[in-house]
Amino acid sequence: MNKPLILVTNDDSIVAPGIRTLIDIAKQIGTVIVVAPDSPQSGMGHAITVNNTLQINKISEDGSEVTEYTCSGTPADCVKIAKNEILKQKPDLCLSGINHGSNSSINVIYSGTMSAAVEAGIEGIPSIGFSLADFSWKADFEPIKDYAKKIIEEVLNKGLPQNVVLNVNFPKLKKEEIKGIKICRQANAKYEEKFDKRISPFGKEYYWLSGEFVNNDKGEDTDEWALKNGYISIVPVQFDLTAHHAIQQLNTWNL
Amino acid sequence: MNKPLILVTNDDSIVAPGIRTLIDIAKQIGTVIVVAPDSPQSGMGHAITVNNTLQINKISEDGSEVTEYTCSGTPADCVKIAKNEILKQKPDLCLSGINHGSNSSINVIYSGTMSAAVEAGIEGIPSIGFSLADFSWKADFEPIKDYAKKIIEEVLNKGLPQNVVLNVNFPKLKKEEIKGIKICRQANAKYEEKFDKRISPFGKEYYWLSGEFVNNDKGEDTDEWALKNGYISIVPVQFDLTAHHAIQQLNTWNL
Repeated sequence: MNKPLILVTNDDSIVAPGIRTLIDIAKQIGTVIVVAPDSPQSGMGHAITVNNTLQINKISEDGSEVTEYTCSGTPADCVKIAKNEILKQKPDLCLSGINHGSNSSINVIYSGTMSAAVEAGIEGIPSIGFSLADFSWKADFEPIKDYAKKIIEEVLNKGLPQNVVLNVNFPKLKKEEIKGIKICRQANAKYEEKFDKRISPFGKEYYWLSGEFVNNDKGEDTDEWALKNGYISIVPVQFDLTAHHAIQQLNTWNL
Repeated sequence: MNKPLILVTNDDSIVAPGIRTLIDIAKQIGTVIVVAPDSPQSGMGHAITVNNTLQINKISEDGSEVTEYTCSGTPADCVKIAKNEILKQKPDLCLSGINHGSNSSINVIYSGTMSAAVEAGIEGIPSIGFSLADFSWKADFEPIKDYAKKIIEEVLNKGLPQNVVLNVNFPKLKKEEIKGIKICRQANAKYEEKFDKRISPFGKEYYWLSGEFVNNDKGEDTDEWALKNGYISIVPVQFDLTAHHAIQQLNTWNL
């Protein structure tokens, strides 16, 4: 294979240490183009910009090793505009992240990181979302660099199953503490939300969404189990949301 | 069953004719509370508000038949804050829509309407998203009212399979032209994006996302087939995104 063309994006914005790490890894493997949000987009899910305009700005110098653009839109917008307006072709691979914070279990649904990966998958581009279970801006990405590189190379070598992208989550551990990589299913867990009610300086009530992650899924084949037990989790993710197993039951209804 | 407590929301905002229609239908079946965005949220996917605050405003008069709140957040935020701060309990049912525009096929991923329905499903609330294949603000919802009511009543009677919500799409047809209801799978279709590049009054380039919906999935079991052939489509939708069929293949990799 010639040097692959790799699109790198994320949801924490182009200046986040996580994407800088991912760019460093991708540079060792292929030709890298970065199109990432100009501001943080956490929790954006699979939002796209339909009622507003998009701006892109090339921020790398001409002749730089890596070409970088910021985009005013969401992570999914970044992938769409990268393919259609910047590259004018499909890249060989799309990498999203490395997110500051886990996107395991139900987080996949809220995640801007994974929405970029899924958008690339919809476009037929092999695609991986990476996340580290550490929300800190100063999270240590060093321990996971070799693992990320290995996963990327294996995707390039083997190819991904059709209409499947990877959701890779790294535990917050030292390199020697990481036990390996497990292929997993998404744990059936969710948030118990709490809203923190406050009063503005002008006397008006407002809320902050917060909450606690609750996992009652004890399965040892889940991403949550893997992460808790020192493994890197890889969940194959699909964008056919049909609950095929429910079709037969619904066909018995009186509609 | 006592009169069910029904939460109604949408993504086109609380003043859209589609939600007003859905409120009218829901009133015939149960006690209705409305918590809907204060501004249009189309294309918001499963976005939630994590880096900003949320405001809610009660807009109905005390003693009104239906209690209505606007929320400054996304459709998923509306469901979270309705359950946790307004109702302080799970409603018996969540209805989202009726969206002005189809949410069939891959649109389910970008849809704010469906993200509200899915969020309710995650919370364990039986939930249905409704959409009409007509983007017009003046779309005619009359032909579909009886069908929507029938579907809601059947969900209340039969219950939904666990971790499944319904994505209901209505064709843009006269009542006598609608042939019936089909349980479907999500068609494997996507958008061929185009970006419309323009120049601002200040000389800066900007883009509008547009594009054409392309369906190469000829399956007669798909939502697209049903809608094109005069049927209402119901796709059971799940939020376990695991591509379970891919796990075995990935386990053969050298990781």
